Amino acid sequence: MTEHTSRVDVGIVGGGPAGLMTALLLKRRGISAAVVERRSQETIRATQRAGILEAPTVDMLVDAEIGSRVLTEGHEHEGTVLSFDGVQHRIDFQALVGRSVWLYPQNEVFHDLATAWQAEGGEIHWEVDGVAVEGLEGDTPAITFADAAGEPRRIEAELIVGADGSRSMSRKLIPDDVRTDYFTSYPFAWFGILCEAPPTAPELIYANSEVGFALISQRNEDITRMYFQCDPDTDPEDWSDDAIFEHIQQVLGGEDVVALKRGRIIDKTVLPFRSYVCDPLTYGRLVLAGDAGHTVPPTGAKGLNLAFSDVRALVPRIEEFLTGLRSGPARGDGSAGGGPADLTAPLRRYSATALDRVWKAQNFSWWATNLLHRRPGEDAFAHQRRRGEFQAITGSVHGQSYFADSYTGWAEV
Amino acid sequence: MTEHTSRVDVGIVGGGPAGLMTALLLKRRGISAAVVERRSQETIRATQRAGILEAPTVDMLVDAEIGSRVLTEGHEHEGTVLSFDGVQHRIDFQALVGRSVWLYPQNEVFHDLATAWQAEGGEIHWEVDGVAVEGLEGDTPAITFADAAGEPRRIEAELIVGADGSRSMSRKLIPDDVRTDYFTSYPFAWFGILCEAPPTAPELIYANSEVGFALISQRNEDITRMYFQCDPDTDPEDWSDDAIFEHIQQVLGGEDVVALKRGRIIDKTVLPFRSYVCDPLTYGRLVLAGDAGHTVPPTGAKGLNLAFSDVRALVPRIEEFLTGLRSGPARGDGSAGGGPADLTAPLRRYSATALDRVWKAQNFSWWATNLLHRRPGEDAFAHQRRRGEFQAITGSVHGQSYFADSYTGWAEV
Repeated sequence: MTEHTSRVDVGIVGGGPAGLMTALLLKRRGISAAVVERRSQETIRATQRAGILEAPTVDMLVDAEIGSRVLTEGHEHEGTVLSFDGVQHRIDFQALVGRSVWLYPQNEVFHDLATAWQAEGGEIHWEVDGVAVEGLEGDTPAITFADAAGEPRRIEAELIVGADGSRSMSRKLIPDDVRTDYFTSYPFAWFGILCEAPPTAPELIYANSEVGFALISQRNEDITRMYFQCDPDTDPEDWSDDAIFEHIQQVLGGEDVVALKRGRIIDKTVLPFRSYVCDPLTYGRLVLAGDAGHTVPPTGAKGLNLAFSDVRALVPRIEEFLTGLRSGPARGDGSAGGGPADLTAPLRRYSATALDRVWKAQNFSWWATNLLHRRPGEDAFAHQRRRGEFQAITGSVHGQSYFADSYTGWAEV
Repeated sequence: MTEHTSRVDVGIVGGGPAGLMTALLLKRRGISAAVVERRSQETIRATQRAGILEAPTVDMLVDAEIGSRVLTEGHEHEGTVLSFDGVQHRIDFQALVGRSVWLYPQNEVFHDLATAWQAEGGEIHWEVDGVAVEGLEGDTPAITFADAAGEPRRIEAELIVGADGSRSMSRKLIPDDVRTDYFTSYPFAWFGILCEAPPTAPELIYANSEVGFALISQRNEDITRMYFQCDPDTDPEDWSDDAIFEHIQQVLGGEDVVALKRGRIIDKTVLPFRSYVCDPLTYGRLVLAGDAGHTVPPTGAKGLNLAFSDVRALVPRIEEFLTGLRSGPARGDGSAGGGPADLTAPLRRYSATALDRVWKAQNFSWWATNLLHRRPGEDAFAHQRRRGEFQAITGSVHGQSYFADSYTGWAEV
């Protein structure tokens, strides 16, 4: 079979939000990109993920002119509720730090991005197989794969963006002696459900209790998203609908505190908890963005937002890299002052900038996780200590502001 | 031998700062007290302890008119320095929360209190032996002991205050089925030194690094107090002066960051790390105050300040208890509305109020400890996560204010 070869500025492995947003923002700067994705568009759209967008994430969607559904169908949340042993406290984001978050599910973000990219004629290959990347240490890196029809294809580029999610194969292209993997695990998971019920409360409720954590999130007027802490080995089918709602109600502290809206459960999933960071996020002609470079536990709702802050930091550095490439001396001549080593400096600056925010977000996710969950086998001191932390956070404007600033995404400096 | 019996309103077990401050403030309200202490006055004064006083602690010393040495010999600190891997950041307490702390060693606080109490003719027995408390469940509790001359003595009172420190015997008088002991341990200790050197910096430096924690504190112009993280089993004699200073300098990040002032080391001690809370802080005719009821690790400098906030909450409740006792129906008649069960209600309110603050302080001490120390065997993720936390704290006014508010003592509400 003849291999089809295309040539673009940037080849992108992964058609999730990180990859598609990168492609769209590059196009806005006149930089061409092509995207390959292992899964089908329908599969990604049907995958339930987080739904809280920081303000800068919303701004990126709006500024990139990919449609205004986030504004018309999303919901601005000016605060959230923290609950500890049935005592609720609202954190007023707007009053504290002048920012809101938006409730707009990640699969809708994906849908908007995919629709825009395809409507603009952007090159994208869904349901590809056997993706490989080559030539990262040379001048012309390439992505090779078999397309949905089984045809062998090759995309040649100046740069490859690895945006292929938490099970990223592209990050493994960074050699072991260059790459440090930071990893930590948590001794619990989230049991997530979708149910046919209206919202229980106008804002999200993050609750801790003597039986652990629950989150009452939202989807729309008819469907509600909820989570509760469970053992990582839990089989979702072991829990009846009634048992699930009774447990979540117990975490909330009784119907006198807040009465859970119930309905038929249409989806049950156990979500793993892990923290991972790849350092650096670049090697040769490869850069990583989004979950490919770092995974956070879901507690802080930072996953998609971090992917977008990566893209925000990355796109100007890609432009700078390409400009340097085209205005510099002949490639590969090794001369000082403009040689290959310096060409990739903007990519390394991206890595350093992005990792600073990634570690702040990892810390917030870790901290919020520890504040809101019980650890199996913990001592009795731990729960009381967390009660003290809850009071330190909710009992002073400074504690509340620290939480609100982190949750809504730190102000850009 | 004839037993000498005295009669006071309140008998106090323990002549440290918590016991003496309670005695003095009770006297200001016309309530008589007597204090017994196992150690000698000289031993307590020579024991090096923490040296950071929150503003309300200073106010209590000043308001109680026990002398103004805290103001003339203590030093106001309007901020402190946090250091992470050699990167320093000043936290400006005054600018952030409008409060300062004072550097004034705890043994000087003790000296001022003991001097005032004795100058005012307060009853105190040093170097007593065989202290026992009886009658907590009746109307006339009593402390029995042998005084310094070996004479048996008995102090009868309406109420006993247990202020006998972290190895308290009085808290064990709360029956096991009433008392919950909350305890947690830490896998490290502090190596504390006193050395003949001027201050290294105008304010305290709390430093974390890849080799762990150090604190550059102060005593006066000629003597400096420093600490560094060590294994709990460390023998102080295994460390030479040079090795100590080289290690602390390494934690600080090199002489270009801050050059440690060195001098002859005159004291070396290993300080244990533990967190303990007794709940409740009262039983029958007994209340606990200070370390007898709770112990914090030294990182947050909360120990003495918590003892004083206990006393602040306790003294009005003791007055209320005594007033109720004297105006109520005959003791022990068991009638509703004014019977024995209700008489101790003010003491239970003290316990609840004090424990709220104790748990906030336990959380702060735990949090500051984890932010500033390395745990033996921790994963590589942990240190980087803490770097992210350091940046979250120092990189925003909200993070800085959360730290400053906690460190300087929360505003009274």
